[in-house]
Amino acid sequence: MSLSEFEIIERYFRPLTGRRAETRLGIGDDAALLAPPPGQLLALAVDTLVAGIHFPDDAPAESVGHKPLAVNLSDLAAMGAAPLGALLSLTLPRFEAEWLEGFARGFAALASRYRVDLLGGDTTRGPLSVTVQAIGCVPDGEALRRGGARPGDLVVVSGSLGDAALGLSRWRQGLAAADPLVGRLHYPEPRLGLGRLLRGHASACIDISDGLVADLGHILEASGVAARIDADAVPLSADFAAACEEDRRREYSLAWGDDYELCACLPPEALAPIRSAAEAEGVPITAVGEIRAGAGLEVVDGQGRPVTLAAGGYRHFRGGAGAE
Amino acid sequence: MSLSEFEIIERYFRPLTGRRAETRLGIGDDAALLAPPPGQLLALAVDTLVAGIHFPDDAPAESVGHKPLAVNLSDLAAMGAAPLGALLSLTLPRFEAEWLEGFARGFAALASRYRVDLLGGDTTRGPLSVTVQAIGCVPDGEALRRGGARPGDLVVVSGSLGDAALGLSRWRQGLAAADPLVGRLHYPEPRLGLGRLLRGHASACIDISDGLVADLGHILEASGVAARIDADAVPLSADFAAACEEDRRREYSLAWGDDYELCACLPPEALAPIRSAAEAEGVPITAVGEIRAGAGLEVVDGQGRPVTLAAGGYRHFRGGAGAE
Repeated sequence: MSLSEFEIIERYFRPLTGRRAETRLGIGDDAALLAPPPGQLLALAVDTLVAGIHFPDDAPAESVGHKPLAVNLSDLAAMGAAPLGALLSLTLPRFEAEWLEGFARGFAALASRYRVDLLGGDTTRGPLSVTVQAIGCVPDGEALRRGGARPGDLVVVSGSLGDAALGLSRWRQGLAAADPLVGRLHYPEPRLGLGRLLRGHASACIDISDGLVADLGHILEASGVAARIDADAVPLSADFAAACEEDRRREYSLAWGDDYELCACLPPEALAPIRSAAEAEGVPITAVGEIRAGAGLEVVDGQGRPVTLAAGGYRHFRGGAGAE
Repeated sequence: MSLSEFEIIERYFRPLTGRRAETRLGIGDDAALLAPPPGQLLALAVDTLVAGIHFPDDAPAESVGHKPLAVNLSDLAAMGAAPLGALLSLTLPRFEAEWLEGFARGFAALASRYRVDLLGGDTTRGPLSVTVQAIGCVPDGEALRRGGARPGDLVVVSGSLGDAALGLSRWRQGLAAADPLVGRLHYPEPRLGLGRLLRGHASACIDISDGLVADLGHILEASGVAARIDADAVPLSADFAAACEEDRRREYSLAWGDDYELCACLPPEALAPIRSAAEAEGVPITAVGEIRAGAGLEVVDGQGRPVTLAAGGYRHFRGGAGAE
């Protein structure tokens, strides 16, 4: 027997509030009350994901619960912040118990894994979209910004790139979310542990939501520097390497988004210790290029020849023109 | 000549960030950074307003910018919190410079009036909806909750009720936003000053978004008490009294929402000082009933006769089934 909307909220969402000592009052009043950790700044991020634009209309309900939270936690990770809580606003065309239960399971599983308290919720009727606002904390003076990259810094990326793009292509071909590449599309993992490791070491950091070229471009612009990256050094997963057609590799790994890996700039001497610490947490780190004086991003192959990408990159299921 | 989307963001939204000392980093990075005021709790609220559900499809662009922020600031007011900032997520079917400029003007005017910093923004393509998340602060131990009403307390409301409901009816008849009643619908004013005055005095407080009967009902449930209110004591504006058909007065003033006045419970001795202080700020306070032991809400007229309202109240342009 399927549950009512109220029962789903009580079963899945109510237990997500008030688990942290910082949460003085969870959902159920006009506003939630949070005691901020002393000596820390609060980091705040918001993103809306719209069906048919940011995720496929037929995406699994669990993924529609997981991904908007993951995307916002990824923003906190890119600042070096630790999550405290999130506010969820869900717009649904209709009440379907099974779908909502799946959505709630997806949201709850990720929130529980990172001890994210649910601090506010709003459910409305309308075309399917999900807005999550995440709040985290970072010691004063240690936040990772975009504007600190310096000539001589290495450009590093975590994990592997291109998986979500190839996953989308495979999802469209009918492969299920159990496929590891499709899984990368539907269930991105915020690199929160790595973000904390980078504090005090990285000169700049961003998460890769719109593709390495576009997101590194934001760092270069904010820092007033140039960079040169080696397209052949960009880390690819074994699944991607085995399954991706040759003529799509560079586009998917450099110019598509949705992988939610971190891209950071590091002084060369910081690479080895950061790499060891990250690998101990199961996250590989790869140097893909270096920061230089000047402006603009140069992409070359392993032999130093220029690599040309389709203009503007690819932004499927990324309709956003973000103000942040 | 109309402005580009980027120019509108730069002109209207960029100046809204970083005006407060608490804002260490405004929009433009992965997350904003906020220094929380020492000794205070943070109050967090979120609401999504969807076109055709929470506001008319043809609502003025300025109102679509104003109202979602006002609704969230009203939640902060109901907690007795002072606003610090807000995050805005705007989903738009298409870019229309004139509309977006109007939206931005409406948001910016209200944000400026209450010194609300814009801490994050996200613009996406999709069916028109606006999500605002507001963050404020309140001294530890002084937040106004729903659960503290005690038998013998007076039930008071601010301003006048029913205006927004009548305003909606008049908007549909073709009256413009310049009509004061239509203005109440499109441009609700958050009672932030009153919320602060009520700190330390009110035993419970809520903002009236779904109608007095429904929202007072939340206080009664959370506090485990009953109440009796006098329908003839509910404050009506002169415009409402002059324009409202006799058979709609009670429904509009008791059972419709969207007025965003505050409903608070006060020990009788607190009424006079609160009323004086609120009137000095231009906000009238009216006692409409009292809290009693037991459960349920009794609505009577000035002669003590029971007043019957249509079952469930009226929730036009209120599609929400809120988790909070």
